[in-house]
Amino acid sequence: MNTLIPLANIRVVLVETSHPGNLGAAARAMKVMGLADLALVNPKCEIDNEARARASGAVDVLEHTVILASLDAALADVALAAACTSRRRDLPHPAWTPRQAAPKLLGIAQSQRVALVFGSETYGLSNEQLMKCRWLLNVPSNPEYASLNLGAAVQVLAYELRASLDDTTLALPEFELASHESEQALINELEKTLIDLGFLNPANPKRLMPRLRRFFAKAGLEKEEVAIWRGVLSAVRGRRGG
Amino acid sequence: MNTLIPLANIRVVLVETSHPGNLGAAARAMKVMGLADLALVNPKCEIDNEARARASGAVDVLEHTVILASLDAALADVALAAACTSRRRDLPHPAWTPRQAAPKLLGIAQSQRVALVFGSETYGLSNEQLMKCRWLLNVPSNPEYASLNLGAAVQVLAYELRASLDDTTLALPEFELASHESEQALINELEKTLIDLGFLNPANPKRLMPRLRRFFAKAGLEKEEVAIWRGVLSAVRGRRGG
Repeated sequence: MNTLIPLANIRVVLVETSHPGNLGAAARAMKVMGLADLALVNPKCEIDNEARARASGAVDVLEHTVILASLDAALADVALAAACTSRRRDLPHPAWTPRQAAPKLLGIAQSQRVALVFGSETYGLSNEQLMKCRWLLNVPSNPEYASLNLGAAVQVLAYELRASLDDTTLALPEFELASHESEQALINELEKTLIDLGFLNPANPKRLMPRLRRFFAKAGLEKEEVAIWRGVLSAVRGRRGG
Repeated sequence: MNTLIPLANIRVVLVETSHPGNLGAAARAMKVMGLADLALVNPKCEIDNEARARASGAVDVLEHTVILASLDAALADVALAAACTSRRRDLPHPAWTPRQAAPKLLGIAQSQRVALVFGSETYGLSNEQLMKCRWLLNVPSNPEYASLNLGAAVQVLAYELRASLDDTTLALPEFELASHESEQALINELEKTLIDLGFLNPANPKRLMPRLRRFFAKAGLEKEEVAIWRGVLSAVRGRRGG
């Protein structure tokens, strides 16, 4: 069924999960809503019998789970990564509710891979991990008790995407977004260039790179823009070298 | 906060739950979204340490849980009960997605109590239990695997209600709805009257009462209409007796 293509392009990335029951609950939550692509980054537990029991009829999702050593590896072929967090006012990234984000995520997922990123039960996602994601997703919750269980958070996001499928007239994004990998490579190249220029002091970097990352996140970097920026950086280095 | 009054008027009713972990997960799912009123009908398990562990910071919801021997008792002071089910085409009740239902449920819950009713993990709700609810709620899901975990189902509904709070300009319902108790009493009186009339044969009732229940469910019986119907039934019996 053509309408389900977006769901097949949505990857759930669980970072440093510590409870096997949550792995199983996430797998079941995904399959019930039609998602199947689960990646674990540096898990702190095994896919054990408890995980399989909680997965119930979604054991196949656990069996196809990919285990990776870094968030970058899990996002390499992803066009847009959205981090699920409780409200973080200290971060300057674009933030949306799941309901606001769902139609846009589904639109992109018609042709490119999208990732939903969830941190560990105890620590959530580090600032460094959050900065690797273009969007932040804030699930509305009770300000007096906002502690959404990890499996329940996956369920809410997966539900929101499936429920929004019906409501949305999906439009292809106008331009193809850059992959996570190419965006990270570009930003790394930018950082090196700024160091070479003496504009960024690695011993005292301040908030420069986070602010630049935010700029790229807000812009929604496209594939062709990567080529443009690489050209710019190459020209900067050439002038300096020349 | 005035906008949260609707959530305080929403009761979650779990019928014949068999896994304590699901009681805890439901309590946590509720509290995270700002719900607090949990009722258990004829539970098949205890509120034990597993339930408390899964409830995490929502143990207070478990501590205030009311345990009742019948669904009617749990719904006595409720104006509108909505049963959460997988798709049931054999039932003629009005059915909605959570997204369609949420603004209406929140509107009613501004002034009257609303219940979300969930069946057991294995058997769901019986037809008799479903017929006691005015609405059916069908959570969108994967037709190839629609087995939503009980705690996850509570999470989805609670999330949908909270997320819809922000999107909805809540309007008070135009008329006060009848309580579940008064609706059931009216339908029972109707049934007796039909038996007295010889129109309903208790030995061979066919689908008459389910169809009448559906009629009342679709109509959204109001308080003043109960008085009208009682008057009608009284008149019918009076004519027969006279």
